Amino acid sequence: MTRESSVPGSCYFYYPRLVCVVGVRDEAKGTTNFAPVAWTTPLSSDPPLFGVCLSPGTYSHHLVLTTGEFTANFLSQEHALLAEALGKLSGRETDKVKALDLALEPGEALSTPSLAAAYASAECLLLERHHVGDQTLFVGEVQRIHAFPDAFDADGVLHLERLSPLLYLGSNRYATTAAASLHRPGSGASPR
Amino acid sequence: MTRESSVPGSCYFYYPRLVCVVGVRDEAKGTTNFAPVAWTTPLSSDPPLFGVCLSPGTYSHHLVLTTGEFTANFLSQEHALLAEALGKLSGRETDKVKALDLALEPGEALSTPSLAAAYASAECLLLERHHVGDQTLFVGEVQRIHAFPDAFDADGVLHLERLSPLLYLGSNRYATTAAASLHRPGSGASPR
Repeated sequence: MTRESSVPGSCYFYYPRLVCVVGVRDEAKGTTNFAPVAWTTPLSSDPPLFGVCLSPGTYSHHLVLTTGEFTANFLSQEHALLAEALGKLSGRETDKVKALDLALEPGEALSTPSLAAAYASAECLLLERHHVGDQTLFVGEVQRIHAFPDAFDADGVLHLERLSPLLYLGSNRYATTAAASLHRPGSGASPR
Repeated sequence: MTRESSVPGSCYFYYPRLVCVVGVRDEAKGTTNFAPVAWTTPLSSDPPLFGVCLSPGTYSHHLVLTTGEFTANFLSQEHALLAEALGKLSGRETDKVKALDLALEPGEALSTPSLAAAYASAECLLLERHHVGDQTLFVGEVQRIHAFPDAFDADGVLHLERLSPLLYLGSNRYATTAAASLHRPGSGASPR
């Protein structure tokens, strides 16, 4: 098939991506703000670093600079409407924890709570930040992980048969995962 | 459900992630090296920046520093074994293009070719690099996108009914996407 050439911005070539709900304490209001972020990536194994991109104008950006901490929370697909609601409400105007009746789990290594509904959450200590284009990349050192006991297998790989992670597609659309149908030559079965 | 706490590294909490095959010209050998990378993220809309993490010891890392360019290539799930093979072969020892009989498409804005089999490829000009933990984050400015004409819809969103992108799960395991089964209150159908 022949491919077509287009200018940057013509399509979301980098989606789907795992939805990451970033939690940051709002010390002034005594609550925690949660906002969905799709532009995230692991950045290092040793030390274990995880990066999230936030736009300088956002409330979360302001809060991370204040507290120096955040939690990264990963939701299953049943929570797509929650992710959408968290993205639509403004943390400046609304206490999303109250408005959406969110159950929180207190931090263990740090003082930022995580979302109890998330199948996995990582407590991150802000280590550095980089201004990159129109965003800030916040680099957090992972201090502790909280996960449902059956979410990951013995190899640490997500159990897709038990759990369907929420992926973002762009334009307020979501997806989830399915098993890949790849077959190895000489084997009748899909790989482990 | 009660969650369990664990140390960093106990699970791949940040997967699944879209597989990105990074292409970099090897000027000395007159070929292009392609290596699968899972740690990538968009970093900015304006300018359009895309970041890939490469370990300093890798051949791709060396090549990006030399040429100042790379292509980011996205494969559908049928190409899982190709992605695996690209990850296992060493570009220092093997010309992967020859060994795997890869069809390439010449660069349009830059001189680095992309994988013709990729449903989408982005030509990226190296803008900056950041040392973050044990990796280098290479920041590329997207110059041009090449995609199958039916890969993205009018909103620029990937057509999941037509195309199943390859996702990495960790531990040499792969997955793909499925439609999310979310339903909006008061609507009988899934959202657009």
